[in-house]
Amino acid sequence: MTTNATTTEIALLGGTGEIGEALALRLGRDADYPLTIGSRDERKASEAAEQYRSRLRDRGVDPQLGAAENVDAAADADVVVLSVPPYYAEETIETIAPGLDDETILVSPAVGMQRDEDGLHYHPPSVGSVIEMIDETAPDDVPVVGAFTNLSGERLADLDVEIDTDTLLLGDDEGAKETVATVADSIRGLRPLDVGPLTNATEVEALTPLLINIAQYNDDMENVCVTFH
Amino acid sequence: MTTNATTTEIALLGGTGEIGEALALRLGRDADYPLTIGSRDERKASEAAEQYRSRLRDRGVDPQLGAAENVDAAADADVVVLSVPPYYAEETIETIAPGLDDETILVSPAVGMQRDEDGLHYHPPSVGSVIEMIDETAPDDVPVVGAFTNLSGERLADLDVEIDTDTLLLGDDEGAKETVATVADSIRGLRPLDVGPLTNATEVEALTPLLINIAQYNDDMENVCVTFH
Repeated sequence: MTTNATTTEIALLGGTGEIGEALALRLGRDADYPLTIGSRDERKASEAAEQYRSRLRDRGVDPQLGAAENVDAAADADVVVLSVPPYYAEETIETIAPGLDDETILVSPAVGMQRDEDGLHYHPPSVGSVIEMIDETAPDDVPVVGAFTNLSGERLADLDVEIDTDTLLLGDDEGAKETVATVADSIRGLRPLDVGPLTNATEVEALTPLLINIAQYNDDMENVCVTFH
Repeated sequence: MTTNATTTEIALLGGTGEIGEALALRLGRDADYPLTIGSRDERKASEAAEQYRSRLRDRGVDPQLGAAENVDAAADADVVVLSVPPYYAEETIETIAPGLDDETILVSPAVGMQRDEDGLHYHPPSVGSVIEMIDETAPDDVPVVGAFTNLSGERLADLDVEIDTDTLLLGDDEGAKETVATVADSIRGLRPLDVGPLTNATEVEALTPLLINIAQYNDDMENVCVTFH
């Protein structure tokens, strides 16, 4: 990890997926952070990064946007966003653990969900929430922050869409949470709100299946976002 | 219960409490439904109704707003809102059960919560959610609808505050849910959204402690409301 008073380097692991794409494009357009797209497959990371760069250049933006295998992307970053499916989270953390330390912030937007015939339901791991599971898996000295949890990747990946929504932050390390709040706040139309320590995660993660159920049962609510006011 | 093509009679049981007060004042101001404030104590119901009427008259509104003991209020109503604390819900239903039938819709905004040192947490009954517990307690032929669940009674009880928020509806009886949607929609600035059957209640009820945690950890977010868009 590189620590620098003025620059926070951000790795988007699983950056080829929807929420990774959304964060790469929004951060690439709205902020100046050096970004690295991570993937288990370096070639896929490079292809995604090239595609994101090209879409941003079409809008007159030339982002600092590189690509690497997850383990290398994480080792060089100050903030590592685990934008991987929840069932890959533990495996991904074990892979990148050697490159993490107390100056690397691990961020996860993951939730556990299960579908039945009526809709989606929150299905947390036995420890209570996905973010607490990630905190247990991560090396002890690495601060873990829950963020970007309830966002629609599809909606945010379309840069023609102006957003006006909130992201809920969870974490036991106030400094780490503040750093992530600054990153989130750099995205136009996204407001970070504090929801306290990781033990308050259940209710945050349960909001994601609720949003998907609202989208299912109402017209014109696809990719629904939420605002607290 | 009185069924009438044009008039839905509404009983607000526990109508002396915050959410009952909010619904009485908003419905009294914005709609034409005959309303009855219910309480275990008829005198308390009458005092509350008199106070609400007086506040509405100060605004030039003369509402149809009566008062009765819970059991009598419910027996005469088409829509019975259980705006009582969740731990009184079962007892209240048992009291009013003789006056309910398949033309009375039972509505509940109740959620189960527990506080620890970090915040509030969703604490559902063993059946999975409070609204499912209410459905199990209610006579079999009485349709049950979850509504008004995540609203700030304090905010809504202040008629000087313009609201712009959503209420999430749960129910297995589509006709009953539609009737409640019409009632909710008659409140200015309140939009009903469907979230499907009662089995989808957990994620709706978990939103209430989340709102209270957001209020706790952020400045100027007291009595926070939510909008889905």
